[in-house]
Amino acid sequence: MADFLTPQQEDFSKWYNEIVQKADLADYSPVRGSMVIKPYGYTLWERIRDELDLRFKETGHVNAYFPLLIPMSFLEKETEHVEGFSPELAVVTHGGGAELEEPLVVRPTSETIIGHMYAKWIQSYRDLPVLINQWANVVRWEMRTRLFLRTTEFLWQEGHTAHATQQEAVEETLRMLDVYTDFAVKEAAIPVIQGRKSESEKFAGAIASYTIEAMMKDGKALQSGTSHFLGQNFARAFDIQFLDENNEKQYAWTTSWGVSTRMVGAVVMCHGDDQGLVLPPHLAPIQVVIVPIWRKDAERAAVIEAAQKIKTQLKGIVRAELDQREGLSPGWKFNDWEMRGVPLRIEIGPRDVANQSVMVARRDIPGREGKVQIAMAELTACLPALLESVQAAIYARALAFRDSHIIDVTTYGELKEAVETGFARAWWAGGTADEAAIKEECKATVRCIPTDQPGGSGACVYTGKPAAEVAIFGRSY
Amino acid sequence: MADFLTPQQEDFSKWYNEIVQKADLADYSPVRGSMVIKPYGYTLWERIRDELDLRFKETGHVNAYFPLLIPMSFLEKETEHVEGFSPELAVVTHGGGAELEEPLVVRPTSETIIGHMYAKWIQSYRDLPVLINQWANVVRWEMRTRLFLRTTEFLWQEGHTAHATQQEAVEETLRMLDVYTDFAVKEAAIPVIQGRKSESEKFAGAIASYTIEAMMKDGKALQSGTSHFLGQNFARAFDIQFLDENNEKQYAWTTSWGVSTRMVGAVVMCHGDDQGLVLPPHLAPIQVVIVPIWRKDAERAAVIEAAQKIKTQLKGIVRAELDQREGLSPGWKFNDWEMRGVPLRIEIGPRDVANQSVMVARRDIPGREGKVQIAMAELTACLPALLESVQAAIYARALAFRDSHIIDVTTYGELKEAVETGFARAWWAGGTADEAAIKEECKATVRCIPTDQPGGSGACVYTGKPAAEVAIFGRSY
Repeated sequence: MADFLTPQQEDFSKWYNEIVQKADLADYSPVRGSMVIKPYGYTLWERIRDELDLRFKETGHVNAYFPLLIPMSFLEKETEHVEGFSPELAVVTHGGGAELEEPLVVRPTSETIIGHMYAKWIQSYRDLPVLINQWANVVRWEMRTRLFLRTTEFLWQEGHTAHATQQEAVEETLRMLDVYTDFAVKEAAIPVIQGRKSESEKFAGAIASYTIEAMMKDGKALQSGTSHFLGQNFARAFDIQFLDENNEKQYAWTTSWGVSTRMVGAVVMCHGDDQGLVLPPHLAPIQVVIVPIWRKDAERAAVIEAAQKIKTQLKGIVRAELDQREGLSPGWKFNDWEMRGVPLRIEIGPRDVANQSVMVARRDIPGREGKVQIAMAELTACLPALLESVQAAIYARALAFRDSHIIDVTTYGELKEAVETGFARAWWAGGTADEAAIKEECKATVRCIPTDQPGGSGACVYTGKPAAEVAIFGRSY
Repeated sequence: MADFLTPQQEDFSKWYNEIVQKADLADYSPVRGSMVIKPYGYTLWERIRDELDLRFKETGHVNAYFPLLIPMSFLEKETEHVEGFSPELAVVTHGGGAELEEPLVVRPTSETIIGHMYAKWIQSYRDLPVLINQWANVVRWEMRTRLFLRTTEFLWQEGHTAHATQQEAVEETLRMLDVYTDFAVKEAAIPVIQGRKSESEKFAGAIASYTIEAMMKDGKALQSGTSHFLGQNFARAFDIQFLDENNEKQYAWTTSWGVSTRMVGAVVMCHGDDQGLVLPPHLAPIQVVIVPIWRKDAERAAVIEAAQKIKTQLKGIVRAELDQREGLSPGWKFNDWEMRGVPLRIEIGPRDVANQSVMVARRDIPGREGKVQIAMAELTACLPALLESVQAAIYARALAFRDSHIIDVTTYGELKEAVETGFARAWWAGGTADEAAIKEECKATVRCIPTDQPGGSGACVYTGKPAAEVAIFGRSY
């Protein structure tokens, strides 16, 4: 247990705040609610971005960029949308030394400005579908903020698509939910539950919102990505009309979907332990750190030379770093890199140089059990495979943890108990008022109505009414 | 000559505005001075970003992210800085439904907020250098805007570094100027003149500003990247101090440097012609377009099949696109892709399929002279080489154009004439007032004091005083 970190069991929230700063992921800024993403945290975000971007492009999307500042009147065009976002807006009232005729809001999301442009660009069914994504910063005034999880400004991607038919738009909404699931599982090693949001949790202006919900190590849920079927709501508000094949005017069907820098928080809280971060190899900024070890000055040169040779050998194979810092003991360095969550550590000393082999230690398996000796000549072949087994192992561990913390409940009493430590799964036929009452009493909400349903029916855990669906309940970030 | 474009000779400015929109690079937005970067333009920007980012990382820099909103008081800490940027600020006065105690400005540049964080992070000489870059949006309230060239909001990268000594900081400033030059020449195929900005043109708060200046096809200059040596100005304003090796407190030496979406405008105006864009292959979103040609329906299937096979064959070799649009003639498609500046076009018809060869047309050489027949089996080997020769050719053409439009002048009369069509190079020992008078009279400014000096001395073109340096004069965007 790292003596500079509060143990997770003692205070998970404190552990999180400490590790995010100690591992140099992010820092507080002088601007209320805004954070600074430090290079290590930003590189992690770049990896997330690249993996998502690849998937967006593979599914036919292109990137574009829309203005940061949006006329206030645009938000007011969609009634639910403005009600949902009004309390969170940052408003620019002055520009170029003068008061503006119409205030501009710093975008909290871009459905409105993009809807306006789509109305201009889309004339005919031949112009559809429009499949655009934007990587951008957004601002939502938050009262209680936490690094990565809830900040006034955050980075995200927001996909905005327009389609000729309802079916195509629904398919797109679900396709992107699958893309998010695929990313979460394969790259972030985070098991997620796909599902539909309840009425009270859906996006302001959407017909239906879908989500991927992940479980953190304290049993709480983190909404990790959302995909919204917007129906024709924004098309009507912004007049996105096209001539169909019969030359008749139709409103387009639109979707939007997003993943944000919250995902960094999800990675931290899903895998981290009392020694610090545990990063999935696919996303780790540094996959392998090489720590040279010597006692006598005479040994130094040969060890450093061999370590540098290994680093060169690994170039283009894995993301490797050589820790040549002076004046720090190997033990100190081991702890430091463990704290930063680097998946593999190569230890190389004089005897290893003589044997032409090294010790490789796994971050996810502490102590001797996680160590393996590998011949230097075998490193380029072995390390990628070893990284894959680390990736698989931390996913399996997260999955086992999550599954053991989801309890099927049939009574409200059981539900209350289950959400103390994880998720409750229960038949559900309640309404918005019922959900509010549950939230008030046990701080838990319907995280989603899972896509994966048991079938059949049962009695609603809260109202006792006949229910055709189960819901997942949990406390959330 | 494309009949939908104003010829460059008739009205270059109009040509620019038309081609940027017709080629789908960008569009006007409903927000005064802001633009929408459309997918084709954004992909071009992504290529610029990736090439620059690679170079930043190779020179030891890492990316991070700092807040968009900056307390107004931060800008006021550096006197020259606030004077320079005050007229251009967008100000957030309300957040979360309430008036803010202190207004926040939307960053026009980030020296101040980053300076504040560096003061917190830098304690010892061991913490130096700090070499951080940020990819971000910035807002500067502009009165007269033009797509890509001058917009209220634009995208850019801003590097911010801190060093223990003046020498290191100066070296960094010039290193990044070299990085920009290398990018401009090798990737954008734009010849640039490296040099120092005059006092009146330097960055607000800098000791010295350096620039790369490119010549557009109308003979005007476009400042395409700048690198600033900030001395200890921002370190004093934000108290960035460190303990040196002798345990004495010292102020750090800082630099900043940036390239923005203006670079897209530079690419358009440096290479484009009356047919439209001419994109350098290294940056072109699409390097090769395949246009299938057939007359009889019976021919269609074989041609399409062969074209698809070529596209598959080229995957991972070049960025190729197959134009399968229905109801458009091959001639129309040729013009369309020429307008969009795609470097190479593959024409494939029934006879080509029979011969197992295709015609490849170069965008940079119109008509038959730019066409070459290539066997299908040779495409993967030939196209990358052909793209390199296009890249070299358009650079050579831009260089020849520029060099023939730089005139060495010895009298003010000659200078006035030279800046009508290009740059004037002249001995210069004038001051800020002299420069202002020249600007007033002939709309030209000192673009830079070139790094590359002839040596010796001469009489200042304007004041007649002895001058040790030559300057480049030109009108500019």
